Amino acid sequence: LLMEVEKLNNDPAVHAILVQLPLPSHIDEAVILKAIAVEKDADGFSALNIGNLCLRGGDPPLAVPCTPAGCIELLKRYNIPISGKDCVVLGRSNIVGMPVAHLLQAENGTVTVIHSRTQDIPEKVGRADIVIAAIGRTEMVRGEWLKPGAVVIDVGINSKEDATRKRGYRLVGDCNFDECAAVASAITPVPGGVGPMTIAMLMKNTVNLARHSLGLEPLPLGA
Amino acid sequence: LLMEVEKLNNDPAVHAILVQLPLPSHIDEAVILKAIAVEKDADGFSALNIGNLCLRGGDPPLAVPCTPAGCIELLKRYNIPISGKDCVVLGRSNIVGMPVAHLLQAENGTVTVIHSRTQDIPEKVGRADIVIAAIGRTEMVRGEWLKPGAVVIDVGINSKEDATRKRGYRLVGDCNFDECAAVASAITPVPGGVGPMTIAMLMKNTVNLARHSLGLEPLPLGA
Repeated sequence: LLMEVEKLNNDPAVHAILVQLPLPSHIDEAVILKAIAVEKDADGFSALNIGNLCLRGGDPPLAVPCTPAGCIELLKRYNIPISGKDCVVLGRSNIVGMPVAHLLQAENGTVTVIHSRTQDIPEKVGRADIVIAAIGRTEMVRGEWLKPGAVVIDVGINSKEDATRKRGYRLVGDCNFDECAAVASAITPVPGGVGPMTIAMLMKNTVNLARHSLGLEPLPLGA
Repeated sequence: LLMEVEKLNNDPAVHAILVQLPLPSHIDEAVILKAIAVEKDADGFSALNIGNLCLRGGDPPLAVPCTPAGCIELLKRYNIPISGKDCVVLGRSNIVGMPVAHLLQAENGTVTVIHSRTQDIPEKVGRADIVIAAIGRTEMVRGEWLKPGAVVIDVGINSKEDATRKRGYRLVGDCNFDECAAVASAITPVPGGVGPMTIAMLMKNTVNLARHSLGLEPLPLGA
C-alpha cells in the first residue's frame, strides 16, 4: 500500500489521493496517511495542512477537511452571518470539531469548543447563535437547550433502534431533530444534511489540488 | 541570512535556531522563518509543529510556542486545575492566543477564544475560571469583569504614560492589575510574570530539540 501511495504521489496525472479508512488492522493508518504528499492530500488532514489552517495570515492550506468545510459552505450558501456570532462546537475531534472551530474563528465567529469534560453543557449551548454538533452522542442536544432562533448543524451519524424499520434501526444525529427544529431558525437533517456537503467538499479539494498543481488560486468556501 | 540559516540547519552541533525578529524591512520574515528546519525550530512556530500541536493523538510537536507553554507551566506549577474549567483566551494571535487555546483544551479545559469582533466581552470574561489575556490592549480587562476567584494570566505588554518615571512611561499588561488582583485568586504581574516563563520555555524547547536529536522523549510541561 505504501508503494501504491508513493506511485500515486509521483504520477503527475493524479491530483488527489484519499485512502479509504478504516484499513485492515495489520496496516498502520498513521504511517499510510503520512505517506500521502501534502500536495495530493484530498482530506486536508496532514499536520502541515492543519497547521496552515490554524495559522492566520500565512500560506493557506492546500485542502480543507471536508466535513468542516461543508459546514461553512452551508452557512455561507444560506447567508447565515458568522462574524461576531457566538458559536459552540460540540466535539474536539481532529476531523470535525477542531478544524471547524478554526474555520468559524477565521470567519470572525467567537468559538467555544465543548467536550466530554465540559461543565454545564446545556447552558453553554444555550448561549450560542450557531451550534455545530459533532460529538457522536445519539440525540444529545435537546430543543430546550437552544437559544430560540439558533442555527444548528448536526454532524452526528448514530444508529438508533427502530423496530418499524426492516433493518431494525435508523440513522439519527447528535441533536434531537424534532425538538431542535421547533426552536432553531435553521437546522440540518440526518441523514441528508452535512453528509452530501462532505462529498461535495472532497470534490472541491480535488479541484483545488489540481488548480494548485497548475499554479492557480484555490476556489474559496461559499463560492 | 538564508545561507546562514541553511548552514545552521546542517550543523550537527546546533540543536535549535531562533531568528530574532523584527528583521530589517528588506528581508522577508516568512521566507526566513520557513527556512529553519522543523527539528531546530526553537519557537515552535512552523506550520508542521502547529499542526501537530492542534491534532490530538498524533506526533507531538517538537517544540511548543514559548509564551503559551509558559502559561501552562505556570498553571501546573501553582497546582491550578485546568480540566473541566471554563477558560477564556483574549486574543487569537499565532504566537499566543491560538496555541494557548489548544494547550488548555489538551488539558481538558473548555476554551472560548475572544477577539476584536466578539460581542459582550465583559460578560464572557465573567464566566471564566481561567483568563489568559493576550489581546494587546492596555489594561482592558477590569476587575469588575472577573468571576471572584478567577485565575488571571496577563500576557500583554503595553507602555502607558507615567510622568513619575524618568522615561515617561511604564509597562502594563492587558489587565488593570490592581482591580483584577482584588478579585482574582491568582494573577501574574506585568512585567515579571509571563515574560521570564517565555525565556525559560525557550530553554526547555532547546533542551527538547537536543533530546529529539538523540532519540530521547521530550520533557513535558509542568515537570
